Amino acid sequence: MEKVFRDPVHNYIHVNNPIIYDLINTAEFQRLRRIKQLGTSSFTFHGAEHSRFSHCMGVYHIAKTITEYFSNTYPLEWNPDENLVTQCAALLHDVGHGAYSHTFEGLFDTDHEAVTREIITSADTEVNTILRRVSPDFPEKVAAVISHDYPNPQVVQLISSQIDTDRMDYLLRDTYYTGAVYGKFDIDRILTSIVPVPDGIAFKISGMHAVEDYIVSRYQMYMQVYFHPASRAMEVILQKLLARAKILYPENQAYFLQTSPCLVPFFEYKNNLQDYLALDDGVMNTYFQTWMRHEDTILSDLAKAYINRHVLKSVQIANENEDKVDSLRKLVAESGFIPDYYTGIHDNFDLPYDFYRPNSEKPRTQIEILQKNGVLTELSKLSPIVASLAGTIHGNRRFYFPKIMLENEEFISIINQNNIQF
Amino acid sequence: MEKVFRDPVHNYIHVNNPIIYDLINTAEFQRLRRIKQLGTSSFTFHGAEHSRFSHCMGVYHIAKTITEYFSNTYPLEWNPDENLVTQCAALLHDVGHGAYSHTFEGLFDTDHEAVTREIITSADTEVNTILRRVSPDFPEKVAAVISHDYPNPQVVQLISSQIDTDRMDYLLRDTYYTGAVYGKFDIDRILTSIVPVPDGIAFKISGMHAVEDYIVSRYQMYMQVYFHPASRAMEVILQKLLARAKILYPENQAYFLQTSPCLVPFFEYKNNLQDYLALDDGVMNTYFQTWMRHEDTILSDLAKAYINRHVLKSVQIANENEDKVDSLRKLVAESGFIPDYYTGIHDNFDLPYDFYRPNSEKPRTQIEILQKNGVLTELSKLSPIVASLAGTIHGNRRFYFPKIMLENEEFISIINQNNIQF
Amino acid sequence: MEKVFRDPVHNYIHVNNPIIYDLINTAEFQRLRRIKQLGTSSFTFHGAEHSRFSHCMGVYHIAKTITEYFSNTYPLEWNPDENLVTQCAALLHDVGHGAYSHTFEGLFDTDHEAVTREIITSADTEVNTILRRVSPDFPEKVAAVISHDYPNPQVVQLISSQIDTDRMDYLLRDTYYTGAVYGKFDIDRILTSIVPVPDGIAFKISGMHAVEDYIVSRYQMYMQVYFHPASRAMEVILQKLLARAKILYPENQAYFLQTSPCLVPFFEYKNNLQDYLALDDGVMNTYFQTWMRHEDTILSDLAKAYINRHVLKSVQIANENEDKVDSLRKLVAESGFIPDYYTGIHDNFDLPYDFYRPNSEKPRTQIEILQKNGVLTELSKLSPIVASLAGTIHGNRRFYFPKIMLENEEFISIINQNNIQF
Amino acid sequence: MEKVFRDPVHNYIHVNNPIIYDLINTAEFQRLRRIKQLGTSSFTFHGAEHSRFSHCMGVYHIAKTITEYFSNTYPLEWNPDENLVTQCAALLHDVGHGAYSHTFEGLFDTDHEAVTREIITSADTEVNTILRRVSPDFPEKVAAVISHDYPNPQVVQLISSQIDTDRMDYLLRDTYYTGAVYGKFDIDRILTSIVPVPDGIAFKISGMHAVEDYIVSRYQMYMQVYFHPASRAMEVILQKLLARAKILYPENQAYFLQTSPCLVPFFEYKNNLQDYLALDDGVMNTYFQTWMRHEDTILSDLAKAYINRHVLKSVQIANENEDKVDSLRKLVAESGFIPDYYTGIHDNFDLPYDFYRPNSEKPRTQIEILQKNGVLTELSKLSPIVASLAGTIHGNRRFYFPKIMLENEEFISIINQNNIQF
Repeated sequence: MEKVFRDPVHNYIHVNNPIIYDLINTAEFQRLRRIKQLGTSSFTFHGAEHSRFSHCMGVYHIAKTITEYFSNTYPLEWNPDENLVTQCAALLHDVGHGAYSHTFEGLFDTDHEAVTREIITSADTEVNTILRRVSPDFPEKVAAVISHDYPNPQVVQLISSQIDTDRMDYLLRDTYYTGAVYGKFDIDRILTSIVPVPDGIAFKISGMHAVEDYIVSRYQMYMQVYFHPASRAMEVILQKLLARAKILYPENQAYFLQTSPCLVPFFEYKNNLQDYLALDDGVMNTYFQTWMRHEDTILSDLAKAYINRHVLKSVQIANENEDKVDSLRKLVAESGFIPDYYTGIHDNFDLPYDFYRPNSEKPRTQIEILQKNGVLTELSKLSPIVASLAGTIHGNRRFYFPKIMLENEEFISIINQNNIQF
Repeated sequence: MEKVFRDPVHNYIHVNNPIIYDLINTAEFQRLRRIKQLGTSSFTFHGAEHSRFSHCMGVYHIAKTITEYFSNTYPLEWNPDENLVTQCAALLHDVGHGAYSHTFEGLFDTDHEAVTREIITSADTEVNTILRRVSPDFPEKVAAVISHDYPNPQVVQLISSQIDTDRMDYLLRDTYYTGAVYGKFDIDRILTSIVPVPDGIAFKISGMHAVEDYIVSRYQMYMQVYFHPASRAMEVILQKLLARAKILYPENQAYFLQTSPCLVPFFEYKNNLQDYLALDDGVMNTYFQTWMRHEDTILSDLAKAYINRHVLKSVQIANENEDKVDSLRKLVAESGFIPDYYTGIHDNFDLPYDFYRPNSEKPRTQIEILQKNGVLTELSKLSPIVASLAGTIHGNRRFYFPKIMLENEEFISIINQNNIQF
Repeated sequence: MEKVFRDPVHNYIHVNNPIIYDLINTAEFQRLRRIKQLGTSSFTFHGAEHSRFSHCMGVYHIAKTITEYFSNTYPLEWNPDENLVTQCAALLHDVGHGAYSHTFEGLFDTDHEAVTREIITSADTEVNTILRRVSPDFPEKVAAVISHDYPNPQVVQLISSQIDTDRMDYLLRDTYYTGAVYGKFDIDRILTSIVPVPDGIAFKISGMHAVEDYIVSRYQMYMQVYFHPASRAMEVILQKLLARAKILYPENQAYFLQTSPCLVPFFEYKNNLQDYLALDDGVMNTYFQTWMRHEDTILSDLAKAYINRHVLKSVQIANENEDKVDSLRKLVAESGFIPDYYTGIHDNFDLPYDFYRPNSEKPRTQIEILQKNGVLTELSKLSPIVASLAGTIHGNRRFYFPKIMLENEEFISIINQNNIQF
Repeated sequence: MEKVFRDPVHNYIHVNNPIIYDLINTAEFQRLRRIKQLGTSSFTFHGAEHSRFSHCMGVYHIAKTITEYFSNTYPLEWNPDENLVTQCAALLHDVGHGAYSHTFEGLFDTDHEAVTREIITSADTEVNTILRRVSPDFPEKVAAVISHDYPNPQVVQLISSQIDTDRMDYLLRDTYYTGAVYGKFDIDRILTSIVPVPDGIAFKISGMHAVEDYIVSRYQMYMQVYFHPASRAMEVILQKLLARAKILYPENQAYFLQTSPCLVPFFEYKNNLQDYLALDDGVMNTYFQTWMRHEDTILSDLAKAYINRHVLKSVQIANENEDKVDSLRKLVAESGFIPDYYTGIHDNFDLPYDFYRPNSEKPRTQIEILQKNGVLTELSKLSPIVASLAGTIHGNRRFYFPKIMLENEEFISIINQNNIQF
């Protein structure tokens, strides 16, 4: 069998294994069509309305390309028996993502990575049923890849490392859909530079500049797209809106049971896998649209702000003026807004690249460059650009407030006098 | 003021008129973010998940480019006072589109063009409030452009003709998002070839090949993307699902009122503008997901088929074998499927281009080419390719049925013996 | 071994056969770097300065892609032993092209296809030496492919037919370098639709629209790029310039022997292969630059016109006004220009596609579409667009004259009164 | 008037000033069609065969875009009277470039910048005649811009600074033609971020990441394309070839006068402007092709190596092993090659970006970022990536030698034992 999917990023995606094709057709995987890849970013970059479904297809495609290339080119260094487990893990790595995951997880104590593993290993899912056709322990193997416990580090690193199939696809895809040009890099060169080595994967020196460019692209996408202040404003509103609903729930159980039944198990911390899978962007937005008519003005107001895209404004908070946030918040309160709901702090920080630090909390697998003499060297030792980004946190902390405050003279004068940046 | 939107198709979209910016920020316009541009096509072309919001932004951008170019280049032939009305009509031309419009309109007797006009002219909308800031009669003017009643044919043709700002954007945009290459054409050349003439707009002969290429691109997109059998299968399922719900409603009023409140006014044919605006793709899908657990197995089965993308299969129906459809349908019934819900006929036909036929039911404004000697000539007289497509209907009629019928020998033998094409 | 070439059209071109790599490094193949692919077209499309070298690399790449795909996918229908001969023929198909071939061949009775075969089969060339390493009769085999005498029609059609590796590369390449958008088509789809059949190659129906689009692209490139009036003006000047030199030669042998030694064998019709290979665009232009200072004002004038791009202007000649050309030419003479050198007729006609016509002078291998039921059908029977182009000659005949004639009132009035088109 | 040029990098280039159009049509400017933009790089990147003509058209286009944008957007900060001088300087900034300039200038003491000024200011050129139509002192003004003596620093910096119209075009153009993806940056964003300030030009902070990306792109193009070892090998051969001809000249005057007349004035150091303009890539290559048959085996051998692309191989020279070069060179001599002609040292170093260093030999105009509060800040203070590249020289020194030395065991063992890198 061969099925072909038209993909704007990779052109054609070929599926020639019935296991992969049947996984794509499961209810759990199809559900990813209903969850946007970039969450609130499409409020800022209107072109970026793509779903996690298309991203997962792309990750599978890259994994298929690499594993087939390895099988043909490195028969001694790579075991072709790993192809299917790698491809399945690539396809399914995000299958547990939920609606607005990052915000949601913070409030309701869910964990999309745990859900991913559960979907793969729980006997009740369509995904599990199909994986078991390969072998009874195959679901566990796929789950192990995703949780970094799989014994072969080559497979683990293809799915999760500082330059893995996931990141390669999302950078290219988010670049394509936002229209940003920064995120493009030479994936064809990277895909022919990648080599399996005993401890994982490495990159031939001839492809080093392409890897370097990938790191810079990643940095630029974080700075320009993922950390955009307007998208984060929408995330702040979303967080406040859900928090308000959660607080109102105990006194309004009947209301929420009628209008927002799929959220109730989460309000009550009694949710199971089926509850989790019942939620998607459309369901959440449908609930928010109902809440727009609720009598609690905070709930209805925040719901309207979210649905109709009324963004909050923001300023950057730096160490030297962090103490001024209280004064600003006080002025917001004096203007009639409850600060708990109409102001917020949003942090966005990223470490574009790092070498291995054994004592760090979460040590990273560093990118290794294979030199012509066979020696492996860590990337930042060879690249001054990468060295400039390595180990340095980028991003900022922002204080969000209602737009109307920009007309408040006292508010503005605090900003100006303390050299607070917008 | 100037606001800039990143757009993957047009790169940057500049908004420098507060009226336009405020229209974009209305609840009615923001709602377009929640309605996919291509409906069920994204089930086939997974990349094409873009919304009507981004399409409308693109149509505005093209209208802005043309009207500014006209103002600078043809001060005698074009009146710059028309710029704003043209741009507003371009931005708002689809503001009345609803969720799954084509299917929905057939069942519930709604009309998205009438809704567009209502949103523009009804005093209750945010859109109308903003348009009235220009002048009290400005909403009516914008609505007149959309209903082809505006006195200046140049403006009307920019918004609606065989080569208008709407079609130019959707062909480029749908091409970009599906990843099809057929739909690309040289919009830059077209935009500098377009000329205002007394009766409307025309194209300089030097740009004729670009116009020709646009017509071919349009034809290819219809054949390859818009008429794709799998997308139409999903449309058939959707149509059956909504029809089933409508039939069940009288006996299940309480159920639908609770689970699908926004559809009830339509079941009762008592819907008003607010009811219409309350529906979007996410709301509809949320209802369908609820229906998946309804005790009526037809409703729940069709809801699952739609949500989890279980496509129907199909064959083409031609005149010479139309009489065989009954036999096929009978076999579907014998296999235990109620034909009314599990089979369907779907027609997709398009006239890629036509010259003006005064006696036709809906005469088209033909494309005029301005020759170097000043004479206007209808496009198909100059282009053999366009002549080959002019006035000829393309597309087909398909009979849809459950996939499992492909294993029914009698069913297959009817298909083969009657030379019915898949 | 594997050598990789960066190519802007195909991204990376991989060479993994030493025969191919060594052929690329021959003097005869490297010489193609010094011959522009599009001749005088770069005077009109300044971006299109690419050489026959890069085109030949691209044709090789497409042939490699198809033959490897055939070997993997159609082991019964395609013989992998044909891969190398196909790839060599693809690489070398234009190795005999000379400087400004079309103009040159008309004047000096050379034939680039015959030269191609001679380079391949003559024992004196580096190309032949390398080909003989495969087997003593391998050069003859490669030459037979190019002259359509090779027994396997699949191989012949891959190199030369209405949709062959040569045309696919030049359409994409010329599109890329001119910046025209018309010429793009979906080569990836075509390359996975192509199937070897007993009588040659065919295309699966699922790829028919891509083939259709290729035919339209080809038509557009001819109309828009290859037949551009300004490029043809430069061809007319070039033809007149070389003709003048040839006429002057008998009385100026010493001059030409000193300034233009490599042309002398051609003036004397005594040229051999080495003489032919000594000529390239740079050598010709160097001679022309010398001729700019010759005392014969026709020669020097035409040389300056060519080198400094002083284009002639032109009008279209149609049957109904062909008799007016004499009057125009007479006026050119009266203005002091010798018509034989300062006016010219230039024909450009093309048959975008044709089906097989056994009685035609040069019958074409038609494009066959493989339908799902296994039947082969000729393309134009399935595609109305192709039918509209099939068998119809497109192009025009132009009369060229000095630009200054546009200021001659009588000249202009003949043009206008007889409805002669520019 | 308006003339439109199709350009693959900028799409359409519009010329609406007769001065510009007439400058394009001068003999001196048309001559740029015969000089490759990238010299020997097309031996490595076969797609990069574009000429200085197309680059100069692109620089003009960018200058036109910026000056028109400035005129509309910054009427107080920018004087529209500077538009034409800026556009002329942009178009003509490279008009004095000669064939293989860098190599040639080293050997024959020419200076393409001085020639550029001479073409502009000398009364004998077509360029000067046209510029004088603007005003008698206009040629001097244009020349002053190019020599950095023009009083308005805004104009000077648009033509020559660390982010000028020249660099923007060549990065994009060389990227397009080589097929490298590294060189792409968001020129549209840069062009709307650029602001005229009293001391020159600056960039709004909102466009800082685009500027940052431009610096990285520039660095990558130097590392990957401009400094490619194989292209430099061809430059070494070229340098040796011309040096050999120069040495042979005194004893072979008649030979060179007959075969290479346009080089003689340079051999004799008596060259004038006309001599300079008579040389181009084609003329040089024609001479080299003649020299392939000269009896001096060094001359003929080097000519063949250059024409037929027989590249030298190379190793990197670092401080710690610089003393080993002599041993390597000695082995080359022992193998029968005269080291002066068959070995060479080639340095390629670049400073990707630097801030202003008043005491440096050639202080650079630094890139200034305009912050929201109106303060100008030097780029590397805001960007860690740029800081990592600022003031640091990148590139390497290479020792070139005949390929056959790779089979010499002693030679290889010196390389390996001293950890010399290829």
